[in-house]
Amino acid sequence: MSNIGKRRATALKQDAETYTKRRREIFEAAAQLFKKNGYERTSLNDVAEALDSDRATIYYYVASKKELLHEVVRDVVAQTAKEALEIRRRSDPAPAKLRMLIVALMRAYATNFPYQYVYIQEGIAMNDHGDAHLFKLGQQYERCLVDILAEGLADGSFQSASDPKILAYGILGALNWTHRWFNPSGRLSSDEVGETFAELFLRGLSPRDVKAVVKGGARPRIGR
Amino acid sequence: MSNIGKRRATALKQDAETYTKRRREIFEAAAQLFKKNGYERTSLNDVAEALDSDRATIYYYVASKKELLHEVVRDVVAQTAKEALEIRRRSDPAPAKLRMLIVALMRAYATNFPYQYVYIQEGIAMNDHGDAHLFKLGQQYERCLVDILAEGLADGSFQSASDPKILAYGILGALNWTHRWFNPSGRLSSDEVGETFAELFLRGLSPRDVKAVVKGGARPRIGR
Repeated sequence: MSNIGKRRATALKQDAETYTKRRREIFEAAAQLFKKNGYERTSLNDVAEALDSDRATIYYYVASKKELLHEVVRDVVAQTAKEALEIRRRSDPAPAKLRMLIVALMRAYATNFPYQYVYIQEGIAMNDHGDAHLFKLGQQYERCLVDILAEGLADGSFQSASDPKILAYGILGALNWTHRWFNPSGRLSSDEVGETFAELFLRGLSPRDVKAVVKGGARPRIGR
Repeated sequence: MSNIGKRRATALKQDAETYTKRRREIFEAAAQLFKKNGYERTSLNDVAEALDSDRATIYYYVASKKELLHEVVRDVVAQTAKEALEIRRRSDPAPAKLRMLIVALMRAYATNFPYQYVYIQEGIAMNDHGDAHLFKLGQQYERCLVDILAEGLADGSFQSASDPKILAYGILGALNWTHRWFNPSGRLSSDEVGETFAELFLRGLSPRDVKAVVKGGARPRIGR
């Protein structure tokens, strides 16, 4: 029996609850380090040190650093993609759905801090490791946002000369860039940030008003 | 005399033009690789291979991978920060300055492709290497954007309940996130993307119109 095999067998003698709890502690420590130093520059040794443990012990719980990365982000990414599908499916008008989607994403970033930001930050590593499942979840989220924008543009509740896809990238950019500056224990709550961005984009997409028409040269037809 | 010393001496016998040209080729190859695979996972060997050269030869031209990263981004980041200072200084109204700043940044991303995107992507590595000069240039750019937003909020040409800093992060987020999807040789020009974002944010920040006031419950005071 190999050393790792012996250790793993020992680990399995622990009751399931202890094993699961320890695994969760490892994910938590790894997520903190991935967020702070990046995936590439974090070793399993670093994770072990953060837990006053050693690398060999970490191997009872995860097979590789790559597995650790995926364990850290998988559930939160799946949950966010599911939420987007639910919001898209609602019968609310497109602007209400866009607001919900934006606020929900900022909430998820705060609730799952820093797990979900690791996913955003390590975009290259993720693609490189060719995780088709994670890639599909990302695409699914993006699709929901594009669909809500297209719906609003089609029924006139949004107005823009641009492609819904570019608009979606702009909105996602503002939200995903929060991984560089937002900290849920900071001055602002995720809801404050979410509402600020929702307001900015909803106003940016709302149909032009009477005043804008006046500015554009046409006369407002008030009283009709 | 060490091997490197000998090689460097040979390199210096080249005329300055050849030496500079070769350096530029190395920066170009490095930028492509940093953008594609990330700084951490790119070695000087990879850069040498891309140029059908060897690592020892690369050392005639740059002292380290870190120096290479900084050479690749330094000039473009300085140029962009300078441009922001010039736009802030103009006497145009704040909305016009915001539009200029957004369009100019997208143009810089395209003109300096992929150099400037390496700077965005490698944010962590940059901070970690503690390049105070680059950090200061980033802060300077951000300050110009915040000032233009604050100016517009103060004179009523913009309207928002939020802090100019959060608004700035939202705008920068949309622009910087283009490093994940925008390619200047693709379907859209940098000006099209810049104008789309400028339009979205300018409308998002423009003072509320008569119609919005009506929606909000208050009666419009037309004719006053």
